[in-house]
Amino acid sequence: DAEITVIGNTGDDFKVHGLHVSPDLDSVTYSLANIGDADRGWGLRGESWAALGQLGRLGAETWFQLGDLDLAMHILRTERLHRGRPLSEVTRDLTQRLELPVRLLPMTDQGVATRIHTTDGRDLHIQEYLVREACQPEIATFEFRGAERAQPGPGVLEAIRQADLVILAPSNPIISIGPILAVPGIRAQVAAATQAVAVSPIVGGRAVKGPAVAMLAALSLPISPGGVAACYADLIQLLVIDELDREGRSEVEALGIRTHVCDTMMVDTKAAARLAAAVLSAAGLSQAVAP
Amino acid sequence: DAEITVIGNTGDDFKVHGLHVSPDLDSVTYSLANIGDADRGWGLRGESWAALGQLGRLGAETWFQLGDLDLAMHILRTERLHRGRPLSEVTRDLTQRLELPVRLLPMTDQGVATRIHTTDGRDLHIQEYLVREACQPEIATFEFRGAERAQPGPGVLEAIRQADLVILAPSNPIISIGPILAVPGIRAQVAAATQAVAVSPIVGGRAVKGPAVAMLAALSLPISPGGVAACYADLIQLLVIDELDREGRSEVEALGIRTHVCDTMMVDTKAAARLAAAVLSAAGLSQAVAP
Repeated sequence: DAEITVIGNTGDDFKVHGLHVSPDLDSVTYSLANIGDADRGWGLRGESWAALGQLGRLGAETWFQLGDLDLAMHILRTERLHRGRPLSEVTRDLTQRLELPVRLLPMTDQGVATRIHTTDGRDLHIQEYLVREACQPEIATFEFRGAERAQPGPGVLEAIRQADLVILAPSNPIISIGPILAVPGIRAQVAAATQAVAVSPIVGGRAVKGPAVAMLAALSLPISPGGVAACYADLIQLLVIDELDREGRSEVEALGIRTHVCDTMMVDTKAAARLAAAVLSAAGLSQAVAP
Repeated sequence: DAEITVIGNTGDDFKVHGLHVSPDLDSVTYSLANIGDADRGWGLRGESWAALGQLGRLGAETWFQLGDLDLAMHILRTERLHRGRPLSEVTRDLTQRLELPVRLLPMTDQGVATRIHTTDGRDLHIQEYLVREACQPEIATFEFRGAERAQPGPGVLEAIRQADLVILAPSNPIISIGPILAVPGIRAQVAAATQAVAVSPIVGGRAVKGPAVAMLAALSLPISPGGVAACYADLIQLLVIDELDREGRSEVEALGIRTHVCDTMMVDTKAAARLAAAVLSAAGLSQAVAP
């Protein structure tokens, strides 16, 4: 079996009512532990919201959706961080409990906060922008606050160095992959990797999920695989793009990046497995990791 | 209307997964806000347990029953205490949100922990004794750790000083009323009160609720209103006892304490109101506080 390491974005981490929430680490965890809510696309299957309702009755803000099941993760993470344990260790322990079939490493154990500076002069945490403000404010600039002082988490550089293949998942290149690459040392390590491939999160001029379109636009990048390729031009040798974007190949290849065209929409587990196989095959690794 | 101040025991407070839980303050709050679970006798009506189940899946201890609704209180209390706000202020804010019809004051803002030293040499927090160990260990001694360094919470001494009547509720005299009286200054202030009355929590040789019998026994006190009176001999002028204990009057009166006999079992709200009226009447206050 292939050994898979996922490096998680912690730029989305923030405090809610004193609890340390790691939205991206938890999304990966819940999804790969097969306890995620696939229909909703985030959080836990069978989630309930009793605590959130009571928080509201007690006068607290409730725009961040804290489910009852989800709270358990935040409570234990917060307790252990308060005791001085690093996020990487806490993440390892909690994901092992859920029998995660991959290794999940936070990009860093230091605090990094993705901030959105809006054209009306506000400085929003990414969760405020995404959830409270529903991606409505116009973006002026992005900031990965604290990234310049952060160090890659334990094992992160080694995992990239030893990898047969680094995959930049079909995530928002600016606020999901961007914070990881902003931690000093990580971008250079990816650039030096044996092979790196990205999957375009822009399909037919639209984001598969979330505000990637507004963010590419804010950086004056085209809303296309070419725009995605521009974010990763120094890093990847191959970009996997959707059938819908077949005509965008030349734009990507002009940057010296090969393309592979296939159906990239992970509408269900089977489709996701097909995409994974296609990515490995395009990277010449299909035999090496077949069971 | 009469103005009622309740002074709450914080000796039961402890940390569960990093959350500051105040079982006694919350019991009073939930009950008087009329959101408590009367059948179960503790916690919130309509409570659910999703978070607790998930805490267990994540490897945490789950002997302390943290309900989803209940968690909201603990999360907000913990956040505010971490920000340096005193427990009295946090309690005021949260009880006001629930429109509590009385003023609830923690006995102190400092940390006091009721500990049970067992005959087999263990040193248990009262919640470990009550909940995890289900009151089974044999008690050697009690300790109100930290009480000697604690100060009465804001308003506590004033409330006692200004009260027409101080009522020692039908609670365990050792671990429920005891920690309050152990805070330096409070016992003397009650002794100096205009009038103080207790309601016996021992009825017909049994505790209305909880481990009062074992505790009186550990102090070699009789399991009777006389044993309760002995705990409060320097404090009260009147002890209200149940019809079942009519024959125990002389034992109490030998200590120089008057008795009033009535039905003391608060089986429902009506019975509780009747008991309250009886206590006020026996203390000569029925007219003063009638609506």
